[in-house]
Amino acid sequence: MLDKIDHIGIAVRDLDAAMARYTALCGQAPGHLEEVPSQKVKVAMFDVGGSRLELLMATAPDSPIAKFIDKRGEGMHHICFKVANLEAALARMTGAEIEIVQGASGEGVGESRVAFLHPKSLMGVMVELVEQG
Amino acid sequence: MLDKIDHIGIAVRDLDAAMARYTALCGQAPGHLEEVPSQKVKVAMFDVGGSRLELLMATAPDSPIAKFIDKRGEGMHHICFKVANLEAALARMTGAEIEIVQGASGEGVGESRVAFLHPKSLMGVMVELVEQG
Repeated sequence: MLDKIDHIGIAVRDLDAAMARYTALCGQAPGHLEEVPSQKVKVAMFDVGGSRLELLMATAPDSPIAKFIDKRGEGMHHICFKVANLEAALARMTGAEIEIVQGASGEGVGESRVAFLHPKSLMGVMVELVEQG
Repeated sequence: MLDKIDHIGIAVRDLDAAMARYTALCGQAPGHLEEVPSQKVKVAMFDVGGSRLELLMATAPDSPIAKFIDKRGEGMHHICFKVANLEAALARMTGAEIEIVQGASGEGVGESRVAFLHPKSLMGVMVELVEQG
């Protein structure tokens, strides 16, 4: 089972411009700002009813977000679901032939344990699973 | 303020194949199946922690979902947020120069009142707002 939508990742070119628009959309400023050097991104998080919108701007041309925008333009990049037990969730994916891109060794924002599932297994949707520490 | 993420719409080519994969992802079968003739789509809804994933398959070549897939391939199509008051939310969007594609006259699944915001206003993300009746 998936506990909830943890966040939706959105790839943007200009974080300041995007924050202005999403502040209007959400009716409040981002609750959290962070730079994640390992992923070469700056992040702005907006709280929405127990989930979050995660705006992602590349900080280098070889950032995964820069590559995504080069290929597809700005827009929704991934959905992250919170799970209680990452290994149990990954075992269920393997049984259903859903390809795991990056296993449970990755570390996400705030030191959570994360894994990514390949978009080709899920009709074009990149899925992240997070087990909070 | 946005109350919560109501659902994430995902455009798929083959609803049966997509339902099999998303049943594995979610750990449960879809909670709701529906055909929406006005939008020329078949819909499968999966409950995830108070939000839903909405798989959308076109039932005709001129369906908005068929056009989306022709242009961008399968994948995330829109995010729908629940709001308490649709007119108040739309007034906030207009003030922030966020373009409204389709105003409050539209009707969504289950007779709710909905509006759509243009992706170019929100960094490539199509946003739906829903006020539940």
